[in-house]
Order: sequence, then C-alpha cells, then structure tokens
Amino acid sequence: MTIKMYDLAGADPAVRFSPYCWRIRMALAHKGLEVETIAWRFSDKDAIAFSGQGLVPVLRDGDTIVHDSWAIAEYLDKTYADRPRLMDGEQGRALASLVRHIAQNVLLTPIAKAIIMDLFHALAPGDQPYFRDSREKRFGMALEKFQIAPDAALAQMTIAVSPLRALLKEQPFLNGRHPAWADYCLFGSFMWARNVSDVALLAPDDPVYAWREQMLDLFDGLARKSARAAG
Amino acid sequence: MTIKMYDLAGADPAVRFSPYCWRIRMALAHKGLEVETIAWRFSDKDAIAFSGQGLVPVLRDGDTIVHDSWAIAEYLDKTYADRPRLMDGEQGRALASLVRHIAQNVLLTPIAKAIIMDLFHALAPGDQPYFRDSREKRFGMALEKFQIAPDAALAQMTIAVSPLRALLKEQPFLNGRHPAWADYCLFGSFMWARNVSDVALLAPDDPVYAWREQMLDLFDGLARKSARAAG
Repeated sequence: MTIKMYDLAGADPAVRFSPYCWRIRMALAHKGLEVETIAWRFSDKDAIAFSGQGLVPVLRDGDTIVHDSWAIAEYLDKTYADRPRLMDGEQGRALASLVRHIAQNVLLTPIAKAIIMDLFHALAPGDQPYFRDSREKRFGMALEKFQIAPDAALAQMTIAVSPLRALLKEQPFLNGRHPAWADYCLFGSFMWARNVSDVALLAPDDPVYAWREQMLDLFDGLARKSARAAG
Repeated sequence: MTIKMYDLAGADPAVRFSPYCWRIRMALAHKGLEVETIAWRFSDKDAIAFSGQGLVPVLRDGDTIVHDSWAIAEYLDKTYADRPRLMDGEQGRALASLVRHIAQNVLLTPIAKAIIMDLFHALAPGDQPYFRDSREKRFGMALEKFQIAPDAALAQMTIAVSPLRALLKEQPFLNGRHPAWADYCLFGSFMWARNVSDVALLAPDDPVYAWREQMLDLFDGLARKSARAAG
C-alpha cells in the first residue's frame, strides 16, 4: 500500500511549502518509496486528529501513523533498513541533528523575515487569520513590521550559513559525496522560501547556492518541478 | 618512540592555551598515545621551520612530521586505525568539520572579545609585540578596543552556541554517547579561554557548561589539571 503524507498546501493546493514536509518528501525519494501526498491546511486540524496532534507532516504507512519529521526519518531508517540510510550511525545522527538545529534556531528567522508577506499571500484565505494571529504572537509584532528588505535578508543569511558554507566548500553535500538526511533537513528551509517567494536568499557565487541547485535536481528534479505560488 | 608535539606556551611555559594544540592533546589521549609536548612561542618560528610552515601544532611521530590540527587528526585515524576512531565514516567527518567551522567562524570572535587582554598578558613578553601587531591588523583596532565586557561576551556566546546547545540537550557529547573529534574541536576553543582567563563564557545552567565539565574530566582530568595563567 502506498505511503500517504499529509502535506501543508497553499491557496493553490498544488503549492507545497512546509519545510518539514519537504524534508520527508526528499527522505522518501532517498529511500525509493512512493508517496501519495494529501493537501492539508492549517485549519484542517480535524483531518489529522487521528495522529494525536495538529501539525504536519503526518505519515500513514499501512497501519502505522507517524508525525514529526525527525521521528519519521528514524521510522523510515528502522522500517526500511535495507534501503539507503538517512543517518549513518551515531555520528551521522549527530550531524543531521546539528544541521536541523542550525536550520531551526539560526536560519529560520532570517528566512522568515525575507518571505513572511509572500508566505501569507500564498496561504488559503481560510488559513490567513490563524497564521497571522499565531505568528504575530510569536514575533511580538505585525507581519508587515517583521518583514525586512531582500538585501538585508541576504546579508543575514550569508552570516547565518557561514559554517554550512565552509563545509560545502570541502564536499558537494553536507553528508559527504552523497546527500542524506542532514541535507534534506537544511533543504526544506530553502523549499519553504522557494515555493512562496521570489526573494533571492543566496548569492549565485555562494557554495550553498550551488548545493541548492544540486538538491533541486535530485530524484529527477522532484523539488525543481514542484509548483510555486503565483507572485 | 614517543610522539612529540610543539605546543604554544605562555610566559609561564607550563601554561598551554592554543585551541588547536588542545584539540590534538585530547585526540592523542583518545587514541591512548603518549605525547611529549615541547613549549613553543610565536617568536620561535625557526624551531618548527622543519615542518615547512610557522604554526603549531606540529607533530613529530618517528620520521613523520604533520602540522595543522585537522591533518593531524586524519593522520592519527589512518596510522592508528586499530585504536578508537576520531571520525567515523563520511558523516562523522562531516560532523566534525561542521563543528570546527562553527568553532572557528562563529565562536572564535565572541571568545576573543572576552579574553583578548587576559590572553595578551599571559603571553611571553617576547611574543607580545608580534601578537599585538598581527591581531590589531586582523581586527582593525587596538586590542583594548576589541575587548568587550564579560556580560556582553556571555550574551554573544549564548546565541552563538545555540545549535550546539540543542544537540547537547539530546545527548551527552557532540558525537553521541562518547566524545570524539567533533567534541575536541569545540573543546579546544574553551581551553583557549580557560587557561588564560577567568571570564565565565557559559552560564552554569547551560547544557554546554555541563558538557565542558565532562570534557575537563576526561582522561583522568587531563584538561582540568592543566596549568592556568596567574590572574
């Protein structure tokens, strides 16, 4: 039975932009597993109530329900152990976890500041009030105030990614010669921006830019072919 | 034949504070290898000219000369492959490299700002003019201007270590259940501060503080027993 994944969608249901869902789309492709994605909206809490919580990604694999992108990656490595691993041993797990913390603690804010209004406009109208309320509480200010100019965002990004950039000068992927879970953890953050916004977060001469291009091409262009919100 | 390491020393030759030499002291202990350290000063370029360059650590292992802490770690894993590994596979190498880039690109500056005058005063008088000249060129200002208040340094540190802190909430060491090269790469930066300065860089409730305590205790307290400059 095909794996099913509840996947955050925009006003256009083809537009998928959750960084955590993108991690899993890439992880499933890495494992060579087919997936049927189900467009989900912030206001559809009932649709995923069976998972015991209210956030996506939620994976349904036969009778097994797993939520939370990290837990899903561990589930996939355990359940499909004979397929290419997402994390290789204890140090591989540590690498991926450090990268996800960089993505979430360091990169999330500058990216959010660059794309927040584009993201807001890409949402289904029914999701916009929830998004505005919850994010304005989190940021302590109006979305319009939180947004910064593209140039300022690019400057903040270039500092924030500095250790990742240094690593990507040494090797093509964060995991080494081939991509794996650490790469997908970071890549999700860039797909979040790409599918709702035209803001350029990276300069073309940045090694992280070249890495992102490679990631967009993986799995027959899975990410590159994905729909973007109309600007 | 015992391995020899040229190790940066202060006015008191027992005081050793190079972050890169500390990485190697810990790595050698990890491998269970004895080492004889040779006190070295910035002004002793001639003493290590045989290595073809002018920076420590320089390792002499029989007829083999290796410099640069990263190259030494790779040499040790290759040459002493039957002893506990410093880096485990491609993902282990990536983990350690990412941590060293965080140490060098993100943490070095706030630590330097906190300890620069203490570091200067710990140096041998003959090293002080070289140190002042080279660092003032690098920072673009007098050492006295570069220094910041301990509170400000602690605030900068707490942000800079945020992804490492998140990882150390999940597991006792950066490498997992046991320390290895990634841990030694970060730990060197803290030994740099510890052996020349009393500035508190971490709050006692920070998981990174608890990790540093564990690191100080490793190998029968190798680092904790090391000499500190008189305040």
